[in-house]
Amino acid sequence: MPLIKNKPSVQVSFQLVKKELKLVESQILDQVKAFDPALEPYMDYICNTSGKRIRPALAILAGGATGGVNDDHLKIGVILELIHMSTLVHDDIIDGADTRRKVPTANAKWGNGMAVLLGDALFSHSLLLATEFDSIDICRKVGKASREVCQGEVIQTQRRFDLTLTKDDYFHIIEMKTGALFAAATGIAASLSEVSEDVETQLYNYGMKLGTAYQIYDDCLDLVGTEEEVGKTLRTDLEKGKLTLPLLNLIEQATPAQREKLNKRIIEQQPLDLPVLIGIAEYEGAVESALDTAANLLQEAREDLQILPASKWRSSLEEITSYLDGLLDKCRK
Amino acid sequence: MPLIKNKPSVQVSFQLVKKELKLVESQILDQVKAFDPALEPYMDYICNTSGKRIRPALAILAGGATGGVNDDHLKIGVILELIHMSTLVHDDIIDGADTRRKVPTANAKWGNGMAVLLGDALFSHSLLLATEFDSIDICRKVGKASREVCQGEVIQTQRRFDLTLTKDDYFHIIEMKTGALFAAATGIAASLSEVSEDVETQLYNYGMKLGTAYQIYDDCLDLVGTEEEVGKTLRTDLEKGKLTLPLLNLIEQATPAQREKLNKRIIEQQPLDLPVLIGIAEYEGAVESALDTAANLLQEAREDLQILPASKWRSSLEEITSYLDGLLDKCRK
Repeated sequence: MPLIKNKPSVQVSFQLVKKELKLVESQILDQVKAFDPALEPYMDYICNTSGKRIRPALAILAGGATGGVNDDHLKIGVILELIHMSTLVHDDIIDGADTRRKVPTANAKWGNGMAVLLGDALFSHSLLLATEFDSIDICRKVGKASREVCQGEVIQTQRRFDLTLTKDDYFHIIEMKTGALFAAATGIAASLSEVSEDVETQLYNYGMKLGTAYQIYDDCLDLVGTEEEVGKTLRTDLEKGKLTLPLLNLIEQATPAQREKLNKRIIEQQPLDLPVLIGIAEYEGAVESALDTAANLLQEAREDLQILPASKWRSSLEEITSYLDGLLDKCRK
Repeated sequence: MPLIKNKPSVQVSFQLVKKELKLVESQILDQVKAFDPALEPYMDYICNTSGKRIRPALAILAGGATGGVNDDHLKIGVILELIHMSTLVHDDIIDGADTRRKVPTANAKWGNGMAVLLGDALFSHSLLLATEFDSIDICRKVGKASREVCQGEVIQTQRRFDLTLTKDDYFHIIEMKTGALFAAATGIAASLSEVSEDVETQLYNYGMKLGTAYQIYDDCLDLVGTEEEVGKTLRTDLEKGKLTLPLLNLIEQATPAQREKLNKRIIEQQPLDLPVLIGIAEYEGAVESALDTAANLLQEAREDLQILPASKWRSSLEEITSYLDGLLDKCRK
């Protein structure tokens, strides 16, 4: 399987919530002013490296689908996006990444130490912002999601180059590190609409499955994408011994001789470079199988939405899964 | 001024709250179980490197002094101590410190990347724990104090080797990075006792001044203490170009020729080693003057306590300032 050319990064248009996402964007930039003047230039840089804003879009769509979008849905979107951004600042330190979204990372610009502290400041601000809801329940849900993300990151780092990592372990990690914030976006948005517990749970589940599928896609992209198109440093998973689903499939499907060769590299903490992987039979099959797993999760996520009355919002939540399906398909080419 | 021998680390006995501090200690260790099993060994290590627990002691004493100690005062003590511990984990990365409280730091044990993530996990857990109060007001105060600490750390790092740093800037930094959590301990404890706003403000001020004085003491200790006695890596401020109050005094008091020599080293980001400093006239005076500033703050802190009715708790809060006064005096020897 060759590297994919012309592989676009995720760019869902989110047409339905375009207006709301503009407000979210401006509210994110407004946060810069909440910091001490000394921090403003840093925060301005970090907040201006525009992301895909998937989490805010999910919160807004879930709000629309559960009775109508209000300011609270925008606010939870902003908060979860800021939390996400603060984790990216720290992720880039861990991964030694110098580029994200085609611009230098905080660590590349100001060094690792400063990036640690800037991530902390942004993270603490996000959690403080959550107290503006005047609802302990919402604060608790935001806090829990944040802790999940952090714990997922710890376990992922702990288990690098760890051959005993099972697929269950992998799912546990990605549900925490990625699923939790997606699920918080849709679940908390439902909670803010004061819907029944059942609807909130189903929307939470939708977010969890979508987030998990998205992470599997991202893990496949790290193997088969190109840096020019994706706009960030790739192949870091291989270098860092991060055993993602396609790699776990590969290890599982390899012949005993191939497995030994692969294991040797992992145990010696040598980078798992692509030529070595492609040399192993079933490399394509291993990626395909991971993509299938993601597609199944997306199907389940669509089913979770059936509890909602039909609406343009529900359709848009469905379209996101279809869009991601399309991206998975491009990885197969 | 020679290095101080037999310089004890701060070890206030906190006799009056010994029983409560034992409970705090056990509640801190209980937090380990709140994490994913994979994180327990790390958190167990971090939570077992017993600190001085100054912040919990302050919360408990302030609780006693405002109507009686209850479980909430212990809980806020635990939360603020966990936040403090999480900032120490990140501080040690920034400072490249390999020892704290005579044991290896998290970064020395598991590397910088893991230490970043463990600090994040502990920090997010602390803020989640604050939601157990069922009070948005308390959550907000905890969140604000946390953000202050993080911002203080950023500004401190930003302004290393920065000759334009004024004493006002220095106080702004240490009030944020150290004062904020001390003030939160006494201020939130008063708030939990539902006292008048005036009493809460005075107790907040007491904590702020005590914390600021404590940081000045710590900054002087970094220059005149010995590692064997203090139990952590010292002279890091000098190496890292951190312009603390005694150094700012020194720059201010130096002759033009001395200042030029000192400035040259700072501009070239060369370590400010002690022999260079001692060669400058008024080195002793510069430390003395910083110690005087701290002593004045302690006097003001004592005055803030006068709003409280006389009690063994108030006496104990006063004794802490006297104890710190004693430590300042030892630095003068």
